[in-house]
Amino acid sequence: MSSENHQTGLQLRSLIKKSGELEISLANVPTPEPAEDEIVVRVEATPINPSDLGLLIGAADMTTAKSSGSKDAPVVTAKVPEAAMKAMAGRLDESMPVGNEGAGVVIKTGSSDAAKALMGKTVAMIGGAMYVQYRCLKARDVLVLPEGATPADGASCFVNPLTALGMTETMRREGHKALVHTAAASNLGQMLNRICIKDGIALVNIVRSSQQADILRKIGAKYVVDSSAPTFMDDLTNALVETGATLAFDAIGGGKLAGQILTCMEIAANKTAKVYSRYGSTVHKQVYIYGSLDPGPVELNRAFGMAWGVGGWLLFPFLQKIGRADGERLRQRVAAELKTTFASHYTKVVSLQEALQLSNIAAYAKRATGEKYLINPNKGG
Amino acid sequence: MSSENHQTGLQLRSLIKKSGELEISLANVPTPEPAEDEIVVRVEATPINPSDLGLLIGAADMTTAKSSGSKDAPVVTAKVPEAAMKAMAGRLDESMPVGNEGAGVVIKTGSSDAAKALMGKTVAMIGGAMYVQYRCLKARDVLVLPEGATPADGASCFVNPLTALGMTETMRREGHKALVHTAAASNLGQMLNRICIKDGIALVNIVRSSQQADILRKIGAKYVVDSSAPTFMDDLTNALVETGATLAFDAIGGGKLAGQILTCMEIAANKTAKVYSRYGSTVHKQVYIYGSLDPGPVELNRAFGMAWGVGGWLLFPFLQKIGRADGERLRQRVAAELKTTFASHYTKVVSLQEALQLSNIAAYAKRATGEKYLINPNKGG
Repeated sequence: MSSENHQTGLQLRSLIKKSGELEISLANVPTPEPAEDEIVVRVEATPINPSDLGLLIGAADMTTAKSSGSKDAPVVTAKVPEAAMKAMAGRLDESMPVGNEGAGVVIKTGSSDAAKALMGKTVAMIGGAMYVQYRCLKARDVLVLPEGATPADGASCFVNPLTALGMTETMRREGHKALVHTAAASNLGQMLNRICIKDGIALVNIVRSSQQADILRKIGAKYVVDSSAPTFMDDLTNALVETGATLAFDAIGGGKLAGQILTCMEIAANKTAKVYSRYGSTVHKQVYIYGSLDPGPVELNRAFGMAWGVGGWLLFPFLQKIGRADGERLRQRVAAELKTTFASHYTKVVSLQEALQLSNIAAYAKRATGEKYLINPNKGG
Repeated sequence: MSSENHQTGLQLRSLIKKSGELEISLANVPTPEPAEDEIVVRVEATPINPSDLGLLIGAADMTTAKSSGSKDAPVVTAKVPEAAMKAMAGRLDESMPVGNEGAGVVIKTGSSDAAKALMGKTVAMIGGAMYVQYRCLKARDVLVLPEGATPADGASCFVNPLTALGMTETMRREGHKALVHTAAASNLGQMLNRICIKDGIALVNIVRSSQQADILRKIGAKYVVDSSAPTFMDDLTNALVETGATLAFDAIGGGKLAGQILTCMEIAANKTAKVYSRYGSTVHKQVYIYGSLDPGPVELNRAFGMAWGVGGWLLFPFLQKIGRADGERLRQRVAAELKTTFASHYTKVVSLQEALQLSNIAAYAKRATGEKYLINPNKGG
């Protein structure tokens, strides 16, 4: 297979200029020669996750997006609002590759045994710069997919699966017995439901509409509360009393939700308290914010005593904290349950060129629940 | 000394009625007969800490306070605003004793050797219900004061000293190398400065006026920043760059200060970062809220990446977490440095009756920096 013409390949690039303009384009880049312990993968499936949009689009206002260039080499430009430019300072005038994870077939290897053993295998990868036709990386950083799994099956096998498993792992490590999850009808939220049902963990799902509640009930979710309902606080408190959940993972971030969750946890804890404590319950209540669907400020009214914490949570620091062996254990579970627990569903499969069409950008940039795109950089090639 | 007439003694009581009225009064209560492992202490000094005011006054509006009863048995009443009654639900119609800590002389003991060894000693105590003439408690729960120390010297030797030591202990245990403290000119803040100077810990003091900054500079504080200055954010960032502080203890709670501290910590961390990360710096930044000088909501703008935490911090859960041996080590340090590092200063010493005079209540209920009252329940007795 090394006769394949892969000396160069297309790579998606995102550039924010000092002038305040975002430019997304395709560059033709040379494929690196693999070192001894490296391999070259022909990327055939790489998802557009919410966590990719931050780098792909940055703070640009996509209602100002314009398309230029040719059909084979499209260029998209958009304006970055002046107020948002400060937050972009670290990446200005630097053309950046995009794409956290992906999967494909190994077409060339270095000379080490570990690398050579991967020739022809279908592998999943993480490490950035995946929106590219040929990706060179270390052999030890890929996960070999089980027999019969396609690149599309394995394209999303790191970010969402490991984030969902990271939530149940964190629950156990920090001594909680049940979980709360917000924006719970998302691809990630559905995956978390499958994990919790399988592992016997009580999960309280918070959604923002009755339609989303239906999605979750259909896949077997037992506790679903709708934050748009007038009875939200009571519904949530009842679910917390039943489950004993004192840990929440919140994808929304801004607004009052994190504080409301802590308040309901406190009310639930006090229902079983026996003596008055003006410092509130002694049960530790924790919310980890792992997303930012609402980028506004977090507002905490502190009606929940003194035993509480709110903090940021990210997958990579979590994986570093638990170490390589425990991380490997989680990866092997993902591989073993790839087509069941960790299956992802996509709205549309697009080429690199199609990923730059304004109609597609408008669809995936909405971050709408259930709307998920997959790029095949070698589509039709 | 057991011939002393201490069969009964006065005890301060705080009651919030379902009708929405606070009533503070003095009750004549029988002194318990000490069990085998118990002692009776004649209380001679017990401070009015901010942490006592929550129980003493609750949510009552003290501008509505009225005095009745006699000079020897005064009664103070005040209205609790209707909106605040929900937070008082746990204590309604229950007459509660007050006073977290105090010191006095052991006048009667149980039959155990440990109890008998304390006869006549001057001891410091913690455990509530200290605004009383005679307090019965377990021998193992007192700290024997060094030779020559008076009850007034030892009256405040738990809450503030152990809270201040708890901050430096938490810093070490959670892997931080320097500290930030807010409302830093308080009695506790000055104590923390003496600890940090002695132990060689860099401490960034945040105060709310130039007068408070002067108080701290006079006792040798190196890093003092004034949150009322227009250059506050820059001043704080510079102090954080110099000290490397990534942990703050905040007495204020409400408003934007906790978020501002995290933002400045993030800017300081990024000044040494080498690669762009759109998730922000990987350095964990933590703010513990241990007080509530501003009871309003906490507002976090999250301009500080994903490696952050905000949470409540309380002395007693901290002491439980570190265990009895480490707690004892901290207590012994307090006893050894009682008249230096851990010295407290009081504005006024009052009797139980005087503590119920409206003019005195108006003074100590302000929680003003540097304004601290000491009750001697046996004053003139």
